Amino acid sequence: MRKGERTRQHVIETAARVLNRHGYAGSGMSELMEATGLAKGGIYRHFQSKEELAVEAFQYAFAEVLKLRFGHLDAVPNAADKLVKYVEGFASVESPIPGGCPILNTGIENDDGNAALLKCSQDAFDSVLRRLTKIIRDGQERKEIRSEIVPAELALFLYSSLEGGIFATRLQGSRQRLKTVARFLCEYLEAEVRAKRS
Amino acid sequence: MRKGERTRQHVIETAARVLNRHGYAGSGMSELMEATGLAKGGIYRHFQSKEELAVEAFQYAFAEVLKLRFGHLDAVPNAADKLVKYVEGFASVESPIPGGCPILNTGIENDDGNAALLKCSQDAFDSVLRRLTKIIRDGQERKEIRSEIVPAELALFLYSSLEGGIFATRLQGSRQRLKTVARFLCEYLEAEVRAKRS
Repeated sequence: MRKGERTRQHVIETAARVLNRHGYAGSGMSELMEATGLAKGGIYRHFQSKEELAVEAFQYAFAEVLKLRFGHLDAVPNAADKLVKYVEGFASVESPIPGGCPILNTGIENDDGNAALLKCSQDAFDSVLRRLTKIIRDGQERKEIRSEIVPAELALFLYSSLEGGIFATRLQGSRQRLKTVARFLCEYLEAEVRAKRS
Repeated sequence: MRKGERTRQHVIETAARVLNRHGYAGSGMSELMEATGLAKGGIYRHFQSKEELAVEAFQYAFAEVLKLRFGHLDAVPNAADKLVKYVEGFASVESPIPGGCPILNTGIENDDGNAALLKCSQDAFDSVLRRLTKIIRDGQERKEIRSEIVPAELALFLYSSLEGGIFATRLQGSRQRLKTVARFLCEYLEAEVRAKRS
């Protein structure tokens, strides 16, 4: 990686941490300058605008989230086990970017705000739903998940509830609430989702 | 109500609408002045700071939310029916303050932001949990809710999932996702929470 690329990547990763904690409106250029150790001109050499930087920072944060939440699931053969592992992962391992879930933070701030960042959050949310939907559908084909379930709807229920659990736990300042929500979801998966052995 | 009080109330209600859509950092004094039709001095005659106005606006918004979400439940005698009505209410009736749920918006923006507003959101979240917990506990005493349920945990699961459903539906720009989450929760209430007739 050349020096210019290294600097660009450093700005993206640093900005992701600032923006995820303080939001787009709440992060001034002065704060981004201080965190990155660059002057305004140094930042604008790599990004045309604060919006462009925020979009890149979001994409970086989302890629980290995907890696953390889905990276270890390929090794799990059974789809019901995959869903349980996915839910348990939220409860046990914190988001890689401090400040809570970037999709939730960016979406809530920008649902009446910056259109490019809202689109980032929408696309990321949809991307998570598609991944979960595929796990559920594949599981139905292998008779690991009950056939009467509508994959996209279960994916939405699980992921929405987890995002709500993250919110509850952020308010509390401990992970206990998210663990409780995850336990309810895991019990639900065992009771209503995992195919019964015939 | 005297004219000064009327003006104060007008500023609170108007600010609640601006702040719930654009957030605390995202709402400038100029926007609040334009929305209320008052000059800066006119606003500061009633509130010492933007923070004080934002706190009052939140309390107003939260009182409206409580009225909408819990006001009609007293007339429902059975606790399991109350919970179903509560969940269905989220799906069918939009938040009275445009811009989504004020508790979610304020909490997510300020978990690393304004401490007074974070406290408002925390207290409001806890207040909702206490109300739901009381419904569940009363229902257990009347044998309408299963005895093995931990009231505060079920309250947390229901409310967190609904907040997550609001987030999902805000991203989508239609109420369909929240309706789907609510349907899952209602099915859960019937299958796992409502006491079986003996």
